[in-house]
Amino acid sequence: VAGAVLAAATGDVRVLLCGQRERILAELGGSLPPGLDIVDAPQVIGNDEEPAFAVRAKQDSSLVTCCRAVREGGAVAAVSAGSTGAMMAASLVEMRRISGVLRPAIAQPIPNKDGFSILLDCGANADCKPEHLVQFAYMGAAFASAVLGIEHPRVGLLSIGEEAGKGNVLVQETFSLLAAAEGIDFYGNVEGRDITRGTTDVVVTDGFTGNVALKLLEGASHFLLDQIRAAATSSLTAKAGAVLLKPALQPLREKVDPEAYGGAYLVGLRGVSVIAHGRSSRTAIRNAILHGANGARHQVVEQLTEQLARRRAAAEAQG
Amino acid sequence: VAGAVLAAATGDVRVLLCGQRERILAELGGSLPPGLDIVDAPQVIGNDEEPAFAVRAKQDSSLVTCCRAVREGGAVAAVSAGSTGAMMAASLVEMRRISGVLRPAIAQPIPNKDGFSILLDCGANADCKPEHLVQFAYMGAAFASAVLGIEHPRVGLLSIGEEAGKGNVLVQETFSLLAAAEGIDFYGNVEGRDITRGTTDVVVTDGFTGNVALKLLEGASHFLLDQIRAAATSSLTAKAGAVLLKPALQPLREKVDPEAYGGAYLVGLRGVSVIAHGRSSRTAIRNAILHGANGARHQVVEQLTEQLARRRAAAEAQG
Repeated sequence: VAGAVLAAATGDVRVLLCGQRERILAELGGSLPPGLDIVDAPQVIGNDEEPAFAVRAKQDSSLVTCCRAVREGGAVAAVSAGSTGAMMAASLVEMRRISGVLRPAIAQPIPNKDGFSILLDCGANADCKPEHLVQFAYMGAAFASAVLGIEHPRVGLLSIGEEAGKGNVLVQETFSLLAAAEGIDFYGNVEGRDITRGTTDVVVTDGFTGNVALKLLEGASHFLLDQIRAAATSSLTAKAGAVLLKPALQPLREKVDPEAYGGAYLVGLRGVSVIAHGRSSRTAIRNAILHGANGARHQVVEQLTEQLARRRAAAEAQG
Repeated sequence: VAGAVLAAATGDVRVLLCGQRERILAELGGSLPPGLDIVDAPQVIGNDEEPAFAVRAKQDSSLVTCCRAVREGGAVAAVSAGSTGAMMAASLVEMRRISGVLRPAIAQPIPNKDGFSILLDCGANADCKPEHLVQFAYMGAAFASAVLGIEHPRVGLLSIGEEAGKGNVLVQETFSLLAAAEGIDFYGNVEGRDITRGTTDVVVTDGFTGNVALKLLEGASHFLLDQIRAAATSSLTAKAGAVLLKPALQPLREKVDPEAYGGAYLVGLRGVSVIAHGRSSRTAIRNAILHGANGARHQVVEQLTEQLARRRAAAEAQG
């Protein structure tokens, strides 16, 4: 609720709070600030519930209500920090896949020196086939265009060697499909270190590797920042140095903060769906809401739909 | 050569330099310091050569000569910063696998708050079967005991959720095998963020995921340290702060430096083989040599052989 208040205060978005009306009103101190509305949703889906079952059983839960609002046109994007599995299931059921999309994927912007790269799939599909990865490449490119404003995004395939032919069987088979794919600026294989180097605008991988990579990146950032904090308080001299250095480090802290983007996008659906971290602060929720609105404003769904249709037409023309 | 000189200067090891005698002597200024010897190996295997073919064709290359010295007892460990593929092939051909080992694996110590965890496989096997991962668990545990001195190493299986059943098909099948495996302290699934948390002493994964993780970790550390360096020189105040803070950060820098360990071990062979980074500094080479000697001193090969034999006997007894 605090994050929604912050988002609405920017004046850029109107926020529909889907949830238990009385509890939301209590959080708001009894009255609705401008830019906020409530959609009453009495049911709650917990983190421990089986996603598909819970979504079917609880049609009046906040998650399902929120995704339904997007389908019915009452909202342009759904944002939730609830159960990831349930948010994926609710998004899939309510928004449905774009025609031709085999598997929606989780797309996460990852900071690098010059900006952000999109890593996908970050965990929606643990086991993938080559044709899934090819679709991720199209979805990632459309997403990078729409959300990051990159006109001709370069797409890399995550592997364990730069040369064609390096990697596991999945990557080897995907490589030749991507090399022949129409309308993709395929860079070739990239390696783990290229993710934070920004070698390509989009990095395509299966949901297992992508999720491990995303969580490792989070863990490594925390580890390094924790250790630096510990070192910075280890002596009076170090403390003095840290005080002087802190302002210069602030932009970096904000950039590598997982809260900067607030959430990952579930792409491949007929609506914008943003999955925020369960431990999101109000700032993270604010950012997730603004980025969801941004996706809708830049018509990421329409762009992706058009690109996929064009690709299918080209493939059919080829025979 | 400079790294070998540093290693020999510790007095803990004798180093056999395998390579072109005249070039090595030239590097040494014409005379051999104490603790160094040369084994003449006129041939060179380049990074671009097909490993298995090159190793068969160039029996007098430095790589093959070095691995042969271990087999023949002239050395206790082989260390190379040459082609990773060729070093793997030469190690495999010359040292051969421990009886019962299906696939050797690359084991890399990863720094965490309290010490190191062993991540394997970091790239020897891009596609794995569950029984390979089970062997990696045994090899990683034996390695953690012998090299890190951990008496009862806990073993985690890298996945994308902590609960049993989370992960891709490979991980799901491996989970039940590990849960039933004798002589392994199996912790269950760990996630990407657990690698730098040190949740377990050993993290088991396939060579594709492990290699992506290792290189991502390297990339993320470089990215963060580069950005901190840039911030630290962005103003006079920041520069002054950095000067004061620097001594306190030194231990951290050394710990996360990929050169601290100097190289990854190829485990599962009848000899100690260390694969150093192609861009290793003299310090990294020194450390790789010392860690190779350490592995031999702690009898990592003998320990692993014994553990695998015990396990096979137990499995046969079970029927």
